[in-house]
Amino acid sequence: MALIVQKYGGTSVGSSERIMNVAQRVAKWKRAGHDVVVVVSAMSGETNRLIELAQSIQSQPDPKELDVICSTGEQVTIGLLSMALINLGVPARSYTGGQIRLLTDNSYSKARILEIDKDRIQSDLHAGKVVVVAGFQGVDADNNITTLGRGGSDTSGVAIAAALSAQECQIYTDVDGVYTTDPRVVATARRLTTVTFEEMLEMASLGSKVLQIRAVEFAGKYKVRLRVLSSLTDPNISIEEESQSGTLITFEDDGTMEAALVSGIAFNRDEAKVTMLGVPDTPGIAFKILDPIANANIEVDVIVQNISTDGKTDFSFTVPKGDMDRTIELLKPVQEEMGARELVGDGKICKLGLVGVGMRSHGGVARKMFETLSNEGVNIQMISTSEIKITVVIDEKYMELAVRALHQSFNLEESN
Amino acid sequence: MALIVQKYGGTSVGSSERIMNVAQRVAKWKRAGHDVVVVVSAMSGETNRLIELAQSIQSQPDPKELDVICSTGEQVTIGLLSMALINLGVPARSYTGGQIRLLTDNSYSKARILEIDKDRIQSDLHAGKVVVVAGFQGVDADNNITTLGRGGSDTSGVAIAAALSAQECQIYTDVDGVYTTDPRVVATARRLTTVTFEEMLEMASLGSKVLQIRAVEFAGKYKVRLRVLSSLTDPNISIEEESQSGTLITFEDDGTMEAALVSGIAFNRDEAKVTMLGVPDTPGIAFKILDPIANANIEVDVIVQNISTDGKTDFSFTVPKGDMDRTIELLKPVQEEMGARELVGDGKICKLGLVGVGMRSHGGVARKMFETLSNEGVNIQMISTSEIKITVVIDEKYMELAVRALHQSFNLEESN
Repeated sequence: MALIVQKYGGTSVGSSERIMNVAQRVAKWKRAGHDVVVVVSAMSGETNRLIELAQSIQSQPDPKELDVICSTGEQVTIGLLSMALINLGVPARSYTGGQIRLLTDNSYSKARILEIDKDRIQSDLHAGKVVVVAGFQGVDADNNITTLGRGGSDTSGVAIAAALSAQECQIYTDVDGVYTTDPRVVATARRLTTVTFEEMLEMASLGSKVLQIRAVEFAGKYKVRLRVLSSLTDPNISIEEESQSGTLITFEDDGTMEAALVSGIAFNRDEAKVTMLGVPDTPGIAFKILDPIANANIEVDVIVQNISTDGKTDFSFTVPKGDMDRTIELLKPVQEEMGARELVGDGKICKLGLVGVGMRSHGGVARKMFETLSNEGVNIQMISTSEIKITVVIDEKYMELAVRALHQSFNLEESN
Repeated sequence: MALIVQKYGGTSVGSSERIMNVAQRVAKWKRAGHDVVVVVSAMSGETNRLIELAQSIQSQPDPKELDVICSTGEQVTIGLLSMALINLGVPARSYTGGQIRLLTDNSYSKARILEIDKDRIQSDLHAGKVVVVAGFQGVDADNNITTLGRGGSDTSGVAIAAALSAQECQIYTDVDGVYTTDPRVVATARRLTTVTFEEMLEMASLGSKVLQIRAVEFAGKYKVRLRVLSSLTDPNISIEEESQSGTLITFEDDGTMEAALVSGIAFNRDEAKVTMLGVPDTPGIAFKILDPIANANIEVDVIVQNISTDGKTDFSFTVPKGDMDRTIELLKPVQEEMGARELVGDGKICKLGLVGVGMRSHGGVARKMFETLSNEGVNIQMISTSEIKITVVIDEKYMELAVRALHQSFNLEESN
């Protein structure tokens, strides 16, 4: 008889039917004798509706008031799910972030969790109730409503699991786990039964949307056992079967697995490449180029500086596609000041990475990756490596081709 | 420089445009140097949408969770209105009922206000902010969300005005005041510049929907100066003009008015008449008949018992139309037990009343009322009187005819 935290995302609670389905699944765990805390998102589409409503009043909504508005989405869901549980004869009650005093800093719209008052939740669990908590939201020290930013419900779920020392935090979503790559691109993509935290983090940073990167970091920090699984299966499948489904995010040192060379291939097309060509190679050029971009809150990802020839070098980096034009505007005065030859942007790129903890102890992954891409005639524009990841930037038109070729050459369709 | 509480109903905040309009009106009062607290309802239609959503999960929604859901409607409005004010350069901030600790009992869906923490509001007012509060909602002693029931936002407004000793509580709505009768029925109906609390209460009990009866009671009890006025006028009309608009609800002893014989005619078609005929006239019949109805939470209004003939009497009363069939079901065993001859219901009735504090000191109102109805051939089915009200129940097909004839015979179209 364990304490389980289950988190259901927007699609999983996207309609009355879906919510009743979730209630059945929760009821099953409760009836099997487990203590269950459920963390929910807003019904799918609801947060966007509220943001649009806010923007119809103020094009750049006041962040504090926007949080007051957006937090209502999850508040509706907690009421509905509690009702659905009560309807099944399962005692349940709802809590907003404020009611369990999920304390955050006051960075409205992107607040960070500081503390959780677990007393109310525990006393309800002892009284035999299922506790339903609104994800994504909290309050600051002055009792102002805050939200944790997009995908913050995952983080709420993990934080509550950590506070309660839950046995497992189950993240229910509309996919049935973490795959070797996107099954819409590679039909033979295979679900991973386990993946390490580090791999999960690298995949998230490459654009995999299965789990929020903050939630993964949080779980890693507080050693929360995390499982990603599907809310679209029959809610009445056996607990035994469900407990083994999805993907478990493991700590590398738990000894339960044979580390795979490569666990997965992640990619995204949402970035653009900006290059400054012919920059005089003097100390501090990286700072001079990236400082104005950081000040404008533009996120820079892959950064590559070529070796110098004739005292000149080329400097490239990627930014979100929507920020490319602004980045180039910001860099024009820098280009002039530095006397760089050219400043160009390219929005038609794809960032693609191989991730695997096995890379640590095995060489040759990079070589094999470049060989595969070369055999397919895919030109590599940028390369960046970390201990367990190799990232390349290529022309976006080669994306599917490259992903499929790499998936096959690393035998990812075969069970690890 | 006064402290003003303004309350805006669902229609007044029914769209982004309307909310921006409200913001302009509030900004005008603020810029004229007044301290302003604004209490708002949910956008029109929103509460019904939320209730329907809840009912799609649970046909009889859990009242506690329903309050969690329904309270989000006002929470969205406070955020939107605060943004609209900030957008106009007016410092503003929002509060949910819980955030100002508007303490209620725990009768979910129809909670009563016990106390309000005015400190946060006052410190914001001193800091020069407009304070925007969610109407209709509060928290109980355990910090559970409660709502005050339909129309509860009026009560919130009055309670906050009382707590802050505001100079006036202005209830903005989609009509421009209280009329002698419904202008849709009588074209010459006239707006009253003043009406007494007692008259307002009697009109509300007769079905006038301009003000919630609880809000009027609350204002009477705490001596809150209350004004009903329109939110549909140009928001930029002068403060002087707006201060004189609408209808002021006065305390009778303030000596500012010449009491009219009859102030208004209220009516509603939402009730049905239930009659038990040939009841043996023994002590306790009223209790025996009304007890099961009260236990079923059915609201009984006009009650009439005829004088006894041959030891038998007839007993009639009105209930909301939707409760008529259930009332008759409940009374069938009582009828049998008592040996009453017949039990009949009639849903085609209209309740109509003349209201006026002048009736206290002037006779002849009832005689003139009955004469007018007789001249028009309107049969009176039930009569009930109070100190400042005469109520009759008539066939609903005569409703317009009766209202128009009475409006004319009491010269209500002329200024009082």
